[in-house]
Amino acid sequence: MTSNTNLRVTVWNEYRHERNDERVSKHYPEGIHAVLADFLSKAGYSVRTATLDEPEHGLTEEVLNNTDVLTWWGHMAHGEVSDEIVERVHKRVLDGMGLIVLHSGHFSKIFRKLMGTTCDLKWRESNDHERIWVVAPDHPIAEGLGDYFEIDDEEMYGEHFDIPAPDTLVFVSWFSGGEVFRSGCCYSRGRGKIFYFRPGHETLPTYHHPIVQQVITQGVSWAAPTPRKPRTFGNTPALEPYKK
Amino acid sequence: MTSNTNLRVTVWNEYRHERNDERVSKHYPEGIHAVLADFLSKAGYSVRTATLDEPEHGLTEEVLNNTDVLTWWGHMAHGEVSDEIVERVHKRVLDGMGLIVLHSGHFSKIFRKLMGTTCDLKWRESNDHERIWVVAPDHPIAEGLGDYFEIDDEEMYGEHFDIPAPDTLVFVSWFSGGEVFRSGCCYSRGRGKIFYFRPGHETLPTYHHPIVQQVITQGVSWAAPTPRKPRTFGNTPALEPYKK
Amino acid sequence: MTSNTNLRVTVWNEYRHERNDERVSKHYPEGIHAVLADFLSKAGYSVRTATLDEPEHGLTEEVLNNTDVLTWWGHMAHGEVSDEIVERVHKRVLDGMGLIVLHSGHFSKIFRKLMGTTCDLKWRESNDHERIWVVAPDHPIAEGLGDYFEIDDEEMYGEHFDIPAPDTLVFVSWFSGGEVFRSGCCYSRGRGKIFYFRPGHETLPTYHHPIVQQVITQGVSWAAPTPRKPRTFGNTPALEPYKK
Amino acid sequence: MTSNTNLRVTVWNEYRHERNDERVSKHYPEGIHAVLADFLSKAGYSVRTATLDEPEHGLTEEVLNNTDVLTWWGHMAHGEVSDEIVERVHKRVLDGMGLIVLHSGHFSKIFRKLMGTTCDLKWRESNDHERIWVVAPDHPIAEGLGDYFEIDDEEMYGEHFDIPAPDTLVFVSWFSGGEVFRSGCCYSRGRGKIFYFRPGHETLPTYHHPIVQQVITQGVSWAAPTPRKPRTFGNTPALEPYKK
Repeated sequence: MTSNTNLRVTVWNEYRHERNDERVSKHYPEGIHAVLADFLSKAGYSVRTATLDEPEHGLTEEVLNNTDVLTWWGHMAHGEVSDEIVERVHKRVLDGMGLIVLHSGHFSKIFRKLMGTTCDLKWRESNDHERIWVVAPDHPIAEGLGDYFEIDDEEMYGEHFDIPAPDTLVFVSWFSGGEVFRSGCCYSRGRGKIFYFRPGHETLPTYHHPIVQQVITQGVSWAAPTPRKPRTFGNTPALEPYKK
Repeated sequence: MTSNTNLRVTVWNEYRHERNDERVSKHYPEGIHAVLADFLSKAGYSVRTATLDEPEHGLTEEVLNNTDVLTWWGHMAHGEVSDEIVERVHKRVLDGMGLIVLHSGHFSKIFRKLMGTTCDLKWRESNDHERIWVVAPDHPIAEGLGDYFEIDDEEMYGEHFDIPAPDTLVFVSWFSGGEVFRSGCCYSRGRGKIFYFRPGHETLPTYHHPIVQQVITQGVSWAAPTPRKPRTFGNTPALEPYKK
Repeated sequence: MTSNTNLRVTVWNEYRHERNDERVSKHYPEGIHAVLADFLSKAGYSVRTATLDEPEHGLTEEVLNNTDVLTWWGHMAHGEVSDEIVERVHKRVLDGMGLIVLHSGHFSKIFRKLMGTTCDLKWRESNDHERIWVVAPDHPIAEGLGDYFEIDDEEMYGEHFDIPAPDTLVFVSWFSGGEVFRSGCCYSRGRGKIFYFRPGHETLPTYHHPIVQQVITQGVSWAAPTPRKPRTFGNTPALEPYKK
Repeated sequence: MTSNTNLRVTVWNEYRHERNDERVSKHYPEGIHAVLADFLSKAGYSVRTATLDEPEHGLTEEVLNNTDVLTWWGHMAHGEVSDEIVERVHKRVLDGMGLIVLHSGHFSKIFRKLMGTTCDLKWRESNDHERIWVVAPDHPIAEGLGDYFEIDDEEMYGEHFDIPAPDTLVFVSWFSGGEVFRSGCCYSRGRGKIFYFRPGHETLPTYHHPIVQQVITQGVSWAAPTPRKPRTFGNTPALEPYKK
C-alpha cells in the first residue's frame, strides 16, 4: 500500500452524532475523526483533527495553509458550517489542497460548491449489504484490491447521484436492496484533487473496516498536491515576437 | 421518443443460434435481426439487414457506403468474421458511420479493434433479474426514461469490463446475483459514434422489451453521422502569414 | 445546419457597453442581444431577449419556466446580477434548461457557480488573429465545419483557463500573440447541458461572423433539454423482492 | 521532481535515422535511445534499451515481463515491427506495463492498436517555434512546470489529431505557423497507463531539452503499474446469497 509520509492531513468531522447517540458512540467513542486520524497516522501521515464546534470549526487560515489533504465527514449540521470557512476551504482546494469527501459529506456546502450540482441521491437505512466493485483497476486508489470488496451492513445510497460525471470513476456499489451507486469519484478542480468515497454511515462500524481504511489512505496519497510554479492570470502582453 | 427518419440503418446479425437452437428460435423465429429491423423500421428509419453467412457477410462496400448507422449482434462465430470486412467496417466508423454494439458483440473483432482492449467481462447464464439505472439523465439515449428500467430475466454480465472509460456512461446495471455492469457506454472514434448496450441474451425475449427497443432506437439516432467538410491530414504549408 | 424549430430561446445580455461606448454601439447599435436574437430567430427558434436593467433582469420565473435554452453575455456588471436570480437560473439549468455562455460570461456568477472553479484566464485586447480548430469533429456543435475557422481580430483569451476538464472539448483556439485556449467546452450538470463558447469581444463585430453564428445556433440545438420522467431522491424503500 | 527509483524502464528506439542521416546523428550519435536512457538513469530508474534490429526487436518475453514502463520512438520503419511483437507489447500494456509514446510514435502499430483510430495528423518540417501550454496543472506529469515551456525549433504537428479524447489532456501546443495540437495525452487501457508526448523530431536536439527530459521522467513515474490482485473473467457463480 502506497503512502506518502511527508503529507500533512487534517481530518475534519462534524462530531455531533457521536456525542448524542449511543448507536454512534459505541463505534466511535472519541468521534469518527479519532478513528480516521488513527489509521492515517499509522500509514505515516502527519495528522491533526478539527471539528465543527471548535473556533472557526478548527479550520483557521494557519491550519489550512499547513494542510496538504483535508478529509471531510458531516451530516446533521451542514447548515452550521459558516460560509466564510467554506470559502476558505474552497480557495485552498483550488490552490492545490486535496479533499476527501466521505459518505454524507455529499451534501456538505464545500462539496456542492465544488461540484456545482445538488449532489442529491437516494438513501435507505436498512443495513443493506454493499459490494463495492472496482471499475478503474489501474487507478492508484484501487491499489492492491481485488475485483470487489464488501461491507456487511451499510446505509444504501442509490442513483441518480446528481454530480458532474467524475473525471475518473473508480468504484461502483451494488446494494442488496436493488440499487447501484458511483461510490468512488475523482475530480480535479483548479489545482486541487477531490475524491468522493461513499461508505461510512455513523451507526455502523464502517471506518474500522480494513479495506475502507486502505482506500481512504490511498485516496489521501492520490489527492496530495502537485508542486508547481505559480500560475498567472489576467492582462498579459503578447509573447510574440519570441526570442529565437 | 426522438427518431431521425432520414437515417439508413443496417442491422447485422450472426444468425446462427436462431437456426440451431430452439431456445433461441422460439423468441426469434426469423432471427434477432428481424426483430431489430422491425422496430427500427417502425421508428421511421430505412432499415436493411445483413448476416454472417451472406457473401461478404452482407457488408459490401456499397452497403456500408449507404449505411448511416450499423447495429451488431454476434456471439458464437466472432472468429468467422473476415478480417477484411472488419477493416472495412472500422474504416467506415472512423469516417463517420455510427455503430451500435449489442450484448455479446462486446467480444466482436470490430468492437475490440475500436476499443484497443480485451473487452472481457464476467458472465453467468442463470436468468438474473437486471435493473438498469440511468446515470446520465440528460443524455439523448436516456430520453423519456425514469430512474431505471427492469428486465425480468437476463444473462449476467459483471465487472470488471475491460473497456476504455466511456466518453459518457449512460447506464449501470444491477444484477440479482450480486454484480454491477457499465451497460450503456458512448464513445467517439474518428468521426464515428459508438454505443455499447448490454442486454440481449439469445435465449431470452429481451429484444421484444419495449424499453430495450426504445433505447436502441434512441441509440441509433444519437449515433447518426455529423455532416462535416473533409479533414486534411499530412504535410501542410504554414498558415502564417494569414490574410488580414 | 441543424436547428430545432420548437425550441424557446432566451437571449440574455448585460447591455451596458452598447449604451456607453461608441466602439461597441457601432457594431451593436441595438445591443449584442439584438444581433444574437436575429440570427437565432432566422434559424427557426422562438426567441425572446432579457437584459440586466429590466425588472428581475428580465428573468422572471415565468420566463425561465418557458425557456429551453438561455444564452448569456455579460462583462462589466457581473456583480450587479442578483444572487436570487442566479439561484433561479442555476436551478433551472440543473432541471434541464440548456445554457450557452459566451465570451466574458466565463466570469459570470452563474458560470462560476456551475463550474465550481474561478474560471479565471489570461486576456489581452490587442486584436490578435484567432484561428479556432475543431478537435471533436463528430460533435453536433461542429457540424459542417472544416478543420478550423478564423476571426481576423479578437481579444485574446489564454490558458490556463481554470475550469473543470470539459466533458467534451470541441474547439481549441490559436492566437497570433502566442497563446492557446479551450474555446468550445461542453458540460452536463444535473439534467442541463452547458456550452461555453469563447469569441465575442464587445468592441469587435464577432457576432456578425457567419461561422460564429452557425456555432451558436448549433450550440443551442445541442443544449436543448432531453425529455425525461421526474427523478426521485431521498428516502426510498427497498426494491427487493422484485415482482417476477 | 518526482521519480520512483524502483522502476524498471525499457527505452525502445527504431534506431535507423541516426545511422543513416548526419542531421540526426549530430544530435544523437549513439541513438535517441542513448539520450533517453541517460537522463532516465540519472532520475534513478533501472533502464535498459532495445532497438528494432535486435532479435525480437529487443523485446523478448523476458525483457517485457521485467519492464514496468516502456518508452517508444519510431518513425520510418513502423511497418517493420512484427505483428507478433506488437501483440506481445499490447498484452503487457493491458496487463499493467506503462507505455510512453513519443512524437512520430503516434503512427506506430502499438499506439494505433491501443487507440483504435488512425492517429493521423498534420505535420510540417519547417522548424516552427513550439510553445507547450499546461492545461491540467494538478497532473503529476506537469509537476514543477509554469504556465508553458518552449522549444525553439520543432517539427509542427497539427489538429485534427485522430485519437480518442484523452482521459486527461495535459498539454496543448501552439505553433508559430498557425496550428495547435494536443501534445500531452493520458490514457488508461486495461490495467496499463499510456502517455503520448508530442516533441522529438529526429533532426533537432529536442531530447536534450531539460524540460522535455523532466516531462518524460515524470511521465514514466505516472505510468508505473498499480499493484493489484488478479482479476477474474468469464463464467462466474452467483455471489448471492452472501454470508452475513
